[in-house]
Amino acid sequence: MAAQKPLAVVLLSGGLDSSTCLYWALNRGYRCVALSAAYGHRHHKELRAARKIAKAARTPLHEVRLSLPWLDVSSLIGCRKSLPRTPLSRIGRGKIPSTYVPGRNTIFLALAVSLADAWGAEAVVIGANAVDFSGYPDCRPAFYRAFRSVFRQGTRRGSEGKPVKILAPLLRLDKADIARLARRLGVPVGLTWSCYAGLAGPCGRCDSCKLRAKGFAEAGFADPAA
Amino acid sequence: MAAQKPLAVVLLSGGLDSSTCLYWALNRGYRCVALSAAYGHRHHKELRAARKIAKAARTPLHEVRLSLPWLDVSSLIGCRKSLPRTPLSRIGRGKIPSTYVPGRNTIFLALAVSLADAWGAEAVVIGANAVDFSGYPDCRPAFYRAFRSVFRQGTRRGSEGKPVKILAPLLRLDKADIARLARRLGVPVGLTWSCYAGLAGPCGRCDSCKLRAKGFAEAGFADPAA
Repeated sequence: MAAQKPLAVVLLSGGLDSSTCLYWALNRGYRCVALSAAYGHRHHKELRAARKIAKAARTPLHEVRLSLPWLDVSSLIGCRKSLPRTPLSRIGRGKIPSTYVPGRNTIFLALAVSLADAWGAEAVVIGANAVDFSGYPDCRPAFYRAFRSVFRQGTRRGSEGKPVKILAPLLRLDKADIARLARRLGVPVGLTWSCYAGLAGPCGRCDSCKLRAKGFAEAGFADPAA
Repeated sequence: MAAQKPLAVVLLSGGLDSSTCLYWALNRGYRCVALSAAYGHRHHKELRAARKIAKAARTPLHEVRLSLPWLDVSSLIGCRKSLPRTPLSRIGRGKIPSTYVPGRNTIFLALAVSLADAWGAEAVVIGANAVDFSGYPDCRPAFYRAFRSVFRQGTRRGSEGKPVKILAPLLRLDKADIARLARRLGVPVGLTWSCYAGLAGPCGRCDSCKLRAKGFAEAGFADPAA
């Protein structure tokens, strides 16, 4: 009898990066369970994309709904504040933009480690990127190193000497590399959603649209979702 | 004009420990905001206690509802599994009991740091205890040390050189010390709820009841909630 594949929890927002992570994990031989969270973000339509991607990848998806009223300090929550229009050259350089959602990746990783510890998963996979990103503190390598200790110390698996791994395969790639990787892995890129604005189609002006467009331009092929 | 007091986020379950933490933080000169989470636990009536305690302490309370179906691996979730009846001498020694809720304190701290970073709080206060406890991995000092790095690396405040502190004032106290501290601080102990069973009154047989009874017995006075 073949040994059962190890299990991984993949944080799936429905964007290009997390969708690429899901296909990366499947390609690496993991059985996957995907995890999405709605947190009042204006582009919650990305969660519809997450459902489509999970279905295409034949992966079960857990959707968690969070009602955290204090997140309204972020321009990504609700529609009362305008999204910033940062020049592409300044995205990720220095100041934290108004789209920062306090504690978002900490909450996502906490939910993922909970699921991983409950079901005996070997790894949590997150599409964090520290190259072409908006400058959020919870996307930096030092943050993920810190969380590894939490996974080791605060879980049953960690106590048993088999701590859940955090895998962030895109951490040091630029968007062009990610676009290439997505194509190589057969990600249904046309189903993904990255725009922050949550309108009928991508706005083309938010940080997320700009970074994505730059990536496909540099990779040298068209974005099937554009 | 007097300087405004610093803000602290207090994780408030409604039990003796977290209620003592709230009064401890107020006594230390913090303005407080309390945070509770419902996660399908069988003793969710502790949240009613949390509301009463917050009201008594004139502290605003945020209640977060989490629907995390995978937590049903724990005997503390739902009522399908029996609660263990561990002999008092064996509580906290070695094996992790079936009442362990995977990732619970990781999720609670993640929610708290999110609120703290959104509102500019200086500290998160948690009633973790590593002396008279049930042996959960996410109650040990090493876990809290690991989370300190997450707070430093993954937040706006951390990026600005003012990381949110994690305060666990009960970490090294035994239950008798906590009972004495609660009395000294004027905690309305009669309003708190610790029992895991969630029946009309405390069951007297679960780990939480046993530890609490031991604490008051050693402290030498009656538990007003018994």
